[in-house]
Amino acid sequence: MKIVIVGGVAGGASAAARARRLCDNAEIIVLERGHYPSFANCGLPYYVGGKIQSRNKLLVAPIDMLRQRHRLDVRIRSEVVQIDRDNKQVSVRNLESGEEYTETYDKLIIATGASPFRPPLPGIDGPRVLELRDLNDADRMYELATSGVTRATIVGAGFIGIEVAENLVRRGIHTTIVELSEQVLPPWDQEMIAPIDEHIRAQGVDILLGESATSFDDGPDGLTINLKSGQALKSDFAVVCIGVRPESQLAADAGIQCGDRGGIIVTDQMQTNDPDIYAVGDVTQVSCFVSKTPTQIPLAGPANRQGRIAADHIFGRQSSYRGTQGTAVVGVFEKTAAMTGLSEKQLKRLDIDYEKVYIHPANHAGYYPGAEALTLKLIYAPKTGVILGAQAVGGDGVDKRIDVIAMAIQGGMTVEDLEEAELCYAPQYGHAKDPINMAGFVAAGVIRGDQPVVHVDSIDPQMFLLDVRSEAEFAAGHIPGATNIPIEVLREHTDEVPKDKTIAAYCKVGQRGYLATRVLMQRGFNVVNISGGYTSWLRSQ
Amino acid sequence: MKIVIVGGVAGGASAAARARRLCDNAEIIVLERGHYPSFANCGLPYYVGGKIQSRNKLLVAPIDMLRQRHRLDVRIRSEVVQIDRDNKQVSVRNLESGEEYTETYDKLIIATGASPFRPPLPGIDGPRVLELRDLNDADRMYELATSGVTRATIVGAGFIGIEVAENLVRRGIHTTIVELSEQVLPPWDQEMIAPIDEHIRAQGVDILLGESATSFDDGPDGLTINLKSGQALKSDFAVVCIGVRPESQLAADAGIQCGDRGGIIVTDQMQTNDPDIYAVGDVTQVSCFVSKTPTQIPLAGPANRQGRIAADHIFGRQSSYRGTQGTAVVGVFEKTAAMTGLSEKQLKRLDIDYEKVYIHPANHAGYYPGAEALTLKLIYAPKTGVILGAQAVGGDGVDKRIDVIAMAIQGGMTVEDLEEAELCYAPQYGHAKDPINMAGFVAAGVIRGDQPVVHVDSIDPQMFLLDVRSEAEFAAGHIPGATNIPIEVLREHTDEVPKDKTIAAYCKVGQRGYLATRVLMQRGFNVVNISGGYTSWLRSQ
Repeated sequence: MKIVIVGGVAGGASAAARARRLCDNAEIIVLERGHYPSFANCGLPYYVGGKIQSRNKLLVAPIDMLRQRHRLDVRIRSEVVQIDRDNKQVSVRNLESGEEYTETYDKLIIATGASPFRPPLPGIDGPRVLELRDLNDADRMYELATSGVTRATIVGAGFIGIEVAENLVRRGIHTTIVELSEQVLPPWDQEMIAPIDEHIRAQGVDILLGESATSFDDGPDGLTINLKSGQALKSDFAVVCIGVRPESQLAADAGIQCGDRGGIIVTDQMQTNDPDIYAVGDVTQVSCFVSKTPTQIPLAGPANRQGRIAADHIFGRQSSYRGTQGTAVVGVFEKTAAMTGLSEKQLKRLDIDYEKVYIHPANHAGYYPGAEALTLKLIYAPKTGVILGAQAVGGDGVDKRIDVIAMAIQGGMTVEDLEEAELCYAPQYGHAKDPINMAGFVAAGVIRGDQPVVHVDSIDPQMFLLDVRSEAEFAAGHIPGATNIPIEVLREHTDEVPKDKTIAAYCKVGQRGYLATRVLMQRGFNVVNISGGYTSWLRSQ
Repeated sequence: MKIVIVGGVAGGASAAARARRLCDNAEIIVLERGHYPSFANCGLPYYVGGKIQSRNKLLVAPIDMLRQRHRLDVRIRSEVVQIDRDNKQVSVRNLESGEEYTETYDKLIIATGASPFRPPLPGIDGPRVLELRDLNDADRMYELATSGVTRATIVGAGFIGIEVAENLVRRGIHTTIVELSEQVLPPWDQEMIAPIDEHIRAQGVDILLGESATSFDDGPDGLTINLKSGQALKSDFAVVCIGVRPESQLAADAGIQCGDRGGIIVTDQMQTNDPDIYAVGDVTQVSCFVSKTPTQIPLAGPANRQGRIAADHIFGRQSSYRGTQGTAVVGVFEKTAAMTGLSEKQLKRLDIDYEKVYIHPANHAGYYPGAEALTLKLIYAPKTGVILGAQAVGGDGVDKRIDVIAMAIQGGMTVEDLEEAELCYAPQYGHAKDPINMAGFVAAGVIRGDQPVVHVDSIDPQMFLLDVRSEAEFAAGHIPGATNIPIEVLREHTDEVPKDKTIAAYCKVGQRGYLATRVLMQRGFNVVNISGGYTSWLRSQ
């Protein structure tokens, strides 16, 4: 068996290692265009910022190890320029010597990944307009960032843009982020990421939303980034990270089928339309685990698992890829945003019915020092309660809650399963009723009709806004037009609540509002609780 | 509807709040023997140690709030001394005045909890032999711990014993722990808790295992704790925390059925043999979620959920308790031990077939600063791969992994589901192949026969021990009798490996050992990988 793998990072490296374990006498050739196979691409921004100090640490699987331990024929600076399916061979160009040669294969695995999208804007190919995909890019950015420059502009506020921003700030560089959409970190829903946007600005970063670069002028006094609005930003350098595109041209040229967005179409065993050719990682189109629709989600975890699965199938194993859930996390100046499953905007786009709830608990018992606020949004099927997605922002404990829900989604579980989840509890780790349980309680309460909710984006001006917090809380700020009747005295003051209107009750985060909803429902009022309470309302402003 | 709840902490408080939400005009009486309903009992040790500085913070639901907001008739210092089932009434003693009165009920909820076990040892009732159940106990311990004393002895190394030890050390008190069994924190398997034992001793705490107190002598120069071995410990005070017993006597006296270990027997709706009487929390016998056998596990999370369920059933709701999984966590001097599901020793006791694997990954990508080692033990059904339990020890990220597996157990999921789990990954949070995935890979590999394993407790002297680490690692320490052939050169040296013996391969944590196992298996050797490698072996010594 002779396996040729095109691309030696993440998916390609995993496929190679798995193939070797399954068959020690297979010939396995890894053709990597860059200088390094299997480097830590998720660590690049942190190397630029100095958080990771040793460049060597990024070389997670040194080439000698791959050659000696795994007996892989790893060839760096080797670009595959053509696939000849009829003769089952690839043309390889040695990027050092320029020579070309052919290599035959029994099975071919395409793991070419995705490359940063670079729109054809004037000046984008200038020396001070960077991107960050590989170690060479990181070296260049490192050099610039530590050369005493003071201003940088980042085009694109996705994962890499935000991580680069944090790390340039770490280097003392004043950083501006330009983002085409109306929010940073577009995979999250806008209201969930608002506190992260605020937090980034609080570190001195300028964020320009709904804005884009139209050209880059490299002049003697620095780089000018011209924006759609007419504004011009002066910078010492720019970083363009406006998303990636699957590097599927090589495959497409050979007649391998690709999807609308360019990803190679594969089976659950990662096989392309040519049964001897597999594709894994960011170059593929995957199925969304939740909606079962085709999608394109570049993530390291899925790439690694896909590599295993391709190798498994080559050697007759029965593993299959279940689809990508979109579990993701990003660290932003000591805060964390994480998500799994579908976002609300994706559900709208896919026209899938959903309900959602918001909670704002602390990450652990409030009486134990160091508790940090977190916000959790849980999205689920309105009748069955099957979990469709979740997003969380805050500090410690955000990734934990999303991981737990990610596992629940993997198991096809419901909000009732979250109610019954039995999780670690000691006061420094969580709550006797963990945020996971709380989200389940609230969502299940909505399904059972115990607690009808309204969301801050759907409050009707005809509703009677009932603030059940204390007078002091009300005085410190409230939703305009609300009437204050603290929950403690509500039962004696129901005559002040109209019977002919929908009552929208709220408190700080939703718990007293829930009790008020129960009190009023049982007295015949038409009442809903504002999910997430005043905290959610503030976020929406 | 008139509901009387006996006990106002955790389960009782949850039942009361839930009942109120379900029925605003029910009469709900909470009879609490102590001075405070709903205090933070899990926070008591940290109040003693000064980590929680304000005593008020422990009063999570002040009595006024319960009375005004929830309209609960909360009566403190009120002990129920008799249940008269025929007349559906209880006799209540006012502990302040000594008066007794009766209170009728439509439904009675018993939430009396569990009390620290105090064996009838000479001197145990002396003023310097403490326990830690309620705020009064905490006040007393706080006073002693801050009075300038220097020596304390803790009898019992369970959760509370260990938490108290940490907090007495925080107060600068030299602390000795006496534990009857051969390990600290008996719910964990011994080999998993060994690093925690070491870590506690490294803080200056003395631990005496296989030892117990036989009497306490209170003398003018302090307290003497006499031990079974004949040793006598001088201390300023002692804390006895050798487990708890359900406080079910009141129920038993009224003919409510209790199990062998004293817990009240309840249905999945928390109903006792008297349909008008429910029991929730530590006073009940529960069903183990995994084995479905009756058990007695005092935990705050389950108590809270049981309280909800009892109230639900009273008001005709369809919720039911699924059983207790035994998810638990303890923080020990900045380290964490967590577990969920059944331990290996419980499985042995229950005679349930299991397989197990050990991994020793870092909590997040090693190239990102601050990575901490963790050890994860995954226990599963040998054929189906259904997860039976898991234990982890380490620093950051331990509770997260156990919570994810707890959710998987709740969903009846398998080790293959762990392989496919899609979890949060960025280098400061995890790995592209998270420890959860790794544990799944290893366990599934064992099931598929790709990787036969042997455990350090089953290494046969007839086996050929093959150390595939580097020469330098081997020189620094190895299993006695092992032969060193580094994985990098193993393929050229298979003639040095005997064909007529079982080869037990190992490396540092199991990964190179796995590859060696694959290399040798494919060459016809009879080979197994030592699960967890040299790290596991060291732990077993």
